[in-house]
Amino acid sequence: MKRRIVVIGGLAAGPSAASKAKRVNPDAEVILFEQGSNISYGICEIPYYLSGIVDDKQKLIAYTPGELKEKRGVTVKIHHRVEKILPTKRKVLVRDLEKNDVVEYLFDKAILATGSTSRRLSIPGENSQNVFVVKSYDDGMKIKEFLDSVHPRKAVLVGGGYIGMEMAEVLTSLGIETTILHKSELPMAGLERETRQAVAEQLTQHGVHFIPNVQTERFIHEPHSSSRVGQVVRVLTSKGVFESDIVILSLGVEPNAELAKDAGISVGATGAIRVDEMQRTRTDNIYAAGDCCEVKNLVNNRPMYMPLATVASKAAWVAGENAAGGRALFKGAIRAIAVKVFDLEVAQVGLSADEARESRFDVATELIHGHSRVAYMPGSKDVTVKFILDKKSKRLLGANLFGGEGVTLRANILAVAVQHKLTVDEISQLDLAYAPPFSPLWDPVLVAANVSKRIWKATPRREKS
Amino acid sequence: MKRRIVVIGGLAAGPSAASKAKRVNPDAEVILFEQGSNISYGICEIPYYLSGIVDDKQKLIAYTPGELKEKRGVTVKIHHRVEKILPTKRKVLVRDLEKNDVVEYLFDKAILATGSTSRRLSIPGENSQNVFVVKSYDDGMKIKEFLDSVHPRKAVLVGGGYIGMEMAEVLTSLGIETTILHKSELPMAGLERETRQAVAEQLTQHGVHFIPNVQTERFIHEPHSSSRVGQVVRVLTSKGVFESDIVILSLGVEPNAELAKDAGISVGATGAIRVDEMQRTRTDNIYAAGDCCEVKNLVNNRPMYMPLATVASKAAWVAGENAAGGRALFKGAIRAIAVKVFDLEVAQVGLSADEARESRFDVATELIHGHSRVAYMPGSKDVTVKFILDKKSKRLLGANLFGGEGVTLRANILAVAVQHKLTVDEISQLDLAYAPPFSPLWDPVLVAANVSKRIWKATPRREKS
Repeated sequence: MKRRIVVIGGLAAGPSAASKAKRVNPDAEVILFEQGSNISYGICEIPYYLSGIVDDKQKLIAYTPGELKEKRGVTVKIHHRVEKILPTKRKVLVRDLEKNDVVEYLFDKAILATGSTSRRLSIPGENSQNVFVVKSYDDGMKIKEFLDSVHPRKAVLVGGGYIGMEMAEVLTSLGIETTILHKSELPMAGLERETRQAVAEQLTQHGVHFIPNVQTERFIHEPHSSSRVGQVVRVLTSKGVFESDIVILSLGVEPNAELAKDAGISVGATGAIRVDEMQRTRTDNIYAAGDCCEVKNLVNNRPMYMPLATVASKAAWVAGENAAGGRALFKGAIRAIAVKVFDLEVAQVGLSADEARESRFDVATELIHGHSRVAYMPGSKDVTVKFILDKKSKRLLGANLFGGEGVTLRANILAVAVQHKLTVDEISQLDLAYAPPFSPLWDPVLVAANVSKRIWKATPRREKS
Repeated sequence: MKRRIVVIGGLAAGPSAASKAKRVNPDAEVILFEQGSNISYGICEIPYYLSGIVDDKQKLIAYTPGELKEKRGVTVKIHHRVEKILPTKRKVLVRDLEKNDVVEYLFDKAILATGSTSRRLSIPGENSQNVFVVKSYDDGMKIKEFLDSVHPRKAVLVGGGYIGMEMAEVLTSLGIETTILHKSELPMAGLERETRQAVAEQLTQHGVHFIPNVQTERFIHEPHSSSRVGQVVRVLTSKGVFESDIVILSLGVEPNAELAKDAGISVGATGAIRVDEMQRTRTDNIYAAGDCCEVKNLVNNRPMYMPLATVASKAAWVAGENAAGGRALFKGAIRAIAVKVFDLEVAQVGLSADEARESRFDVATELIHGHSRVAYMPGSKDVTVKFILDKKSKRLLGANLFGGEGVTLRANILAVAVQHKLTVDEISQLDLAYAPPFSPLWDPVLVAANVSKRIWKATPRREKS
């Protein structure tokens, strides 16, 4: 009999895992269930569609359900919500949302790719028509429609994380006066203080009002003629009242693990599904990949929640291959992230200094200012690099980089160093290409390594004098 | 008594080594001899000065002799040519070119940083006034003066290597009709065929006449009223006659090792001075760094001639530190190079496929076409990556990259992989940062690793069928 693999979730990890499974085992029947209307789209590109930089929403979609069937051999059932998994019976109960009936599907292997959900505030007025999240294709289209039809003049973003930064740029580029309400002093928790300060300056320079240490308490809405929920017009906070024509919640995401929990599948302290290097859950025949599950952090070897497309896509291939009867491993990730904040390119790889301390490393840090090209070449931009180091092993545990250009790719040079546990001495000996229009003789990542050496020289020097 | 360190050569490695020595051992007396008028300048930036991109020649000079004394404590003697080294007597004989007398200097340690010389053709007419090389600061100034005063309309470049490519862009940008005479079929020997083809296309697209497989035989010059050598007006070749108002020789460089050889210091098969990991020559108390000496190639563990500023600067620090009584190691380099050829960014790390075969690796290659950003983001450019792999170990031995942007820094991601002997599987598992304006979800370097896996999958597949 043919092996049947069911895949639950159609955003990114699901279609990738399904395609891989079919490729590895062309005889298998692979069925993907998605409760929404669209599958396989680039959620990270939504802000660029909203700003008009990407001009066609079709470009956001890698595969339609029909294309995934035709090109990859995966049967796609949209408007189908998996409501229950019965692992011992190898069965899923699936509600056809169009017909509104529930059908059973038997499976040999199941792959959970249920993704994540935007966090919400749970405060009054949050369900108003002009309060949005940026999580799905449909969310993006709703925001676009609102922007195009209502032409808001003022926006409030609640939450100063990655999506908040991207949306601040989008809204500002559309001429909308934008205010970010953020719970702590500086935007982008998880990055180093110096990076966060540079981001905050960037926001201010571009006219975004960044309100720190603020509690968002209530959305005051006016009834809308055509709707029962109405539209927010004012945001009440611990720091006063902000007028707004549109509110976007950018509070981060949390894993969709309810379906798994309900089926008795083990969930970690992070709230996400626990998986091993083969992307197997702790329940037989059930795999998971993407934002619904944990990832092993290769720097401190701890399970971590890393809802990132880069991680999801690698894990999805491994889940697909193994569910199909192959053998592949996803050993983990270091967390490598990049974001554009107006004219600033920001990236982080590995642990933050705080995380490193929590992981019981003996932490030292070093920060240097370098240049993206030979300093006097036109177009050269400042690039700041902060190293987070383990004093004992001299290993690079993580780095923050920010600057005007060449930041993400330089962070990726360091990503290799972090993932492969290179020491400062090894980094300083890296043979990197140089040409005046593209890099300085001593690349900022080498400068950071060279300067960092003084951390260890401090002691002998004192002994001498 | 104070340790005296003499440093021979003032371009780049010399001042770096001297500064490092003084820093490591502030009590030492460090004397640098340079036969020319200038020290410590960026030769790699000369083309950008000639094109006017760098507007001030002062920017090319990192330290004047006075500044090196004042800021680094190094005594600099310009117009001083070291004519003989007497290693057993720890003595150098130095000609003061102004006074034209020879003075002896005793030393405790000597550092050879005698650099390299541009190769020449040794054909008639080569010493004409309008035949140039691009090797020293003075060379650059002479070319600049010629361009500004004579306003040549036609130029011939002899040699299609790195400097040839950079100079072709310079001359074209100045409106000068430029012809490159090259001895083989494609420019830039040492790069992969696909890269060389892309470079050749780039030349043609920008109106440069690239003449392949041509022997340059003679420069026909006209006597110049104010000079006995005259100026070239025609270049005779195996493929006919080319008119020219200026000729630039860009035939590569060879090590200046005569002084060392004359002193009995060991020189390798490459013609460059042999050094160990401490940058010691095989003669006691004598160190060497920069273009005059060999470097260990970390990919095949063979001595190699790599006249590159990146390598020289690292080796110089090590020579300086060790000569001063410290202990530092320069373990070698992989050879990482980058060059801009009009709109094309080109980079190479590690071995070429030919070199890998010569080094007895079991070579396989893979070539992929990727994108610098998410493909549909405006500004995204094509990036081609070629992997040179060892079939047995699955190690990445080298890579070529070329494309419209983000090539050098991506090559540097792979430089880390090559230097630390990562396999294709390890590269495909690298956790790299991604953001739509800066990189695609699957960076081209990851795509190359993923696609390369099929090299090893080919055999089992055949067994199955």
